[in-house]
Amino acid sequence: MMKKRYLMAPGPTPVPPNVRLAMAEPLIHHRSPQFSSVFAEVQNGLQYLFQTQNEVLTFAASGTGAMDGAVSNLLSVGDKVLVVRGGKFGERWAEICEAYGLNVENIDLTWGEAVDPDAIAEKLSTKPDIRAIFVQAHETSTGVKHDVKKIGQIVKDFEDTILIVDAISALGVFDVKTDDWHLDVVVSGSQKGLMLPPGLAFVSISPKAWEFADRSDLPKYYFNFLKERKSLVKNQTAFTSPVSLVMGLREVLKMIKAEGLDFYFFRHRLLAKATRAAAKAMGLDTFAKVPSEGVTVFRAPDGIDAQEVVRIVREKYGITIAGGQARLKGKIFRIAHMGYIGPFDIILTVSAVEMALKELGHALELGAGVKAVQEVVLKEWKEL
Amino acid sequence: MMKKRYLMAPGPTPVPPNVRLAMAEPLIHHRSPQFSSVFAEVQNGLQYLFQTQNEVLTFAASGTGAMDGAVSNLLSVGDKVLVVRGGKFGERWAEICEAYGLNVENIDLTWGEAVDPDAIAEKLSTKPDIRAIFVQAHETSTGVKHDVKKIGQIVKDFEDTILIVDAISALGVFDVKTDDWHLDVVVSGSQKGLMLPPGLAFVSISPKAWEFADRSDLPKYYFNFLKERKSLVKNQTAFTSPVSLVMGLREVLKMIKAEGLDFYFFRHRLLAKATRAAAKAMGLDTFAKVPSEGVTVFRAPDGIDAQEVVRIVREKYGITIAGGQARLKGKIFRIAHMGYIGPFDIILTVSAVEMALKELGHALELGAGVKAVQEVVLKEWKEL
Repeated sequence: MMKKRYLMAPGPTPVPPNVRLAMAEPLIHHRSPQFSSVFAEVQNGLQYLFQTQNEVLTFAASGTGAMDGAVSNLLSVGDKVLVVRGGKFGERWAEICEAYGLNVENIDLTWGEAVDPDAIAEKLSTKPDIRAIFVQAHETSTGVKHDVKKIGQIVKDFEDTILIVDAISALGVFDVKTDDWHLDVVVSGSQKGLMLPPGLAFVSISPKAWEFADRSDLPKYYFNFLKERKSLVKNQTAFTSPVSLVMGLREVLKMIKAEGLDFYFFRHRLLAKATRAAAKAMGLDTFAKVPSEGVTVFRAPDGIDAQEVVRIVREKYGITIAGGQARLKGKIFRIAHMGYIGPFDIILTVSAVEMALKELGHALELGAGVKAVQEVVLKEWKEL
Repeated sequence: MMKKRYLMAPGPTPVPPNVRLAMAEPLIHHRSPQFSSVFAEVQNGLQYLFQTQNEVLTFAASGTGAMDGAVSNLLSVGDKVLVVRGGKFGERWAEICEAYGLNVENIDLTWGEAVDPDAIAEKLSTKPDIRAIFVQAHETSTGVKHDVKKIGQIVKDFEDTILIVDAISALGVFDVKTDDWHLDVVVSGSQKGLMLPPGLAFVSISPKAWEFADRSDLPKYYFNFLKERKSLVKNQTAFTSPVSLVMGLREVLKMIKAEGLDFYFFRHRLLAKATRAAAKAMGLDTFAKVPSEGVTVFRAPDGIDAQEVVRIVREKYGITIAGGQARLKGKIFRIAHMGYIGPFDIILTVSAVEMALKELGHALELGAGVKAVQEVVLKEWKEL
């Protein structure tokens, strides 16, 4: 039977039709004046989105590439670093730092919990030789937000320590005030809040962090921040730019500017609230102690395999939601509400989840979750 | 005045309309069964194109990313390596090897010349501790083909030495017989012979090279061949795949299979021959001693700045050709004939170059180059 498909996982997220068509335009050359003019516009839009005056570098890579680059470009052999490890992506920071032979200390959290900024302050006061703090603004695997604003307040007072934030699934979803919050390095990617296909990665770098780049002695070539900084002056990238994705990026940045960050973020907050109301109405617990606006993480009811919910929703109803990763596999499922997503995407997804849960034997009244979404939307919807 | 634009530079090259539309389809999730089925098909097509049974890894990166990965994944600290340095991209191999602290020896060529394979044989016989030879199948900056077939014949007899070939602007342009020619590692990218936007990089790895990967101790994370090899078994990539580009890749691989490698390469040979005939008819020398089928490199006539030819052709006529890079800037200009290019693209480009040269004071008869192209096409054109 013909199936309409819906993408409701935390990346890749749906790409608006006008953006897909912009990317389908004939290519232009990456060293042409036309491209430089596009790239200048994009640079401007990225600074708006990152809320920063810092340079924002753009790489042909998925987000992990920029994470790799942040480590290899900013640290030096044997440097001591502190990693907040509260999920799969916190683990990734630690793995990258270890791959480069850094001296890694972790703050290990129970998955689902947010880091206590005071714990970072304490570590820093007893070990001032920590060169960098690595954390997620949003740990996608658990749906948890870490308080990077507060962490930024702490780290800014340490002259020789920088804060490196993975905002891959945070940027464009909720407020990440790079400059105001003293976030020295912010890493992001194209396929989450930015409504683009995967393939672009971004890094913003503060003046304090550039000093780290100047003295870094770890080996690197493709991800070379100093080299990219030089190319940026000419509105180019050091190596061949993924032209079609950059064309799409220009379109989404225009859209985000037109909506305005406040409304863009408000929409995510509203959808998150509605999805959480649906969880409650379906008799399900949510997983994250401090939930983000980008994804709602549901605990599967006792006796029900979360992977089965994901499978039925995808195979029978054509809707891709996400299961749990690593140790959370089978225990949770995740509905994303980031980027090009509106209330009716949530309504149809919740209705499918209801039917899947019913089929698997969970006691719920069909439509209860949908009704909860409607109530939130009806009450809180705002027009620009 | 409205200007139709034409892309005639050696990458990015034009993308066929059906491929652009395939990439404009709504995204699918990179961990879905649908994507795995696409990726399996793509893997098969890549092996056909690389003429190999080896695994071919796919990265979200431009070609340089895969070059970086080839060094960091296959060599170890302090390894001695031999680099053929005959242009900008030979220099890039040396730079990457130096960035990773390898013990680099170069064979330096006059730009425009091809390496003598016997020089490599000699180096290897006197220094059997050379762990890898780095070379370009086609050095894009000079238009020169290196005889990687003969080099493969030599290197295969050295048990502990591998041959690493940059085929970024060679693959899909002329024959690169990975297995028959004993090319242990072949690196390529999406935006040249593959008719795609930039953003995908590929590496094929022989069993002999996998042993090098097993013992490599250089730091790496994003470009991790062993990790990708594990994901390949599930028809996935280790990190988020650039889904839209992979969709386009499936389309171009179908097109290349349908045309067949022999015809695909024949077309490039024919266009190269026609373009060289045009050079002669315009009274211009070509630069490469052993020219590739992918690009024709013209020496600018005495007293004419090649950059001016490039500028007029682009600004006045809307056609992007390439100038010279680094030390060749101002001395040469380059017309590419790779990928989605037919005889009429050559005819229109040659006609624009004629007009630009005339404007700059070069004595030529307008239409002479075009006529030369027509003669070659009329005589040698074949139908499938």
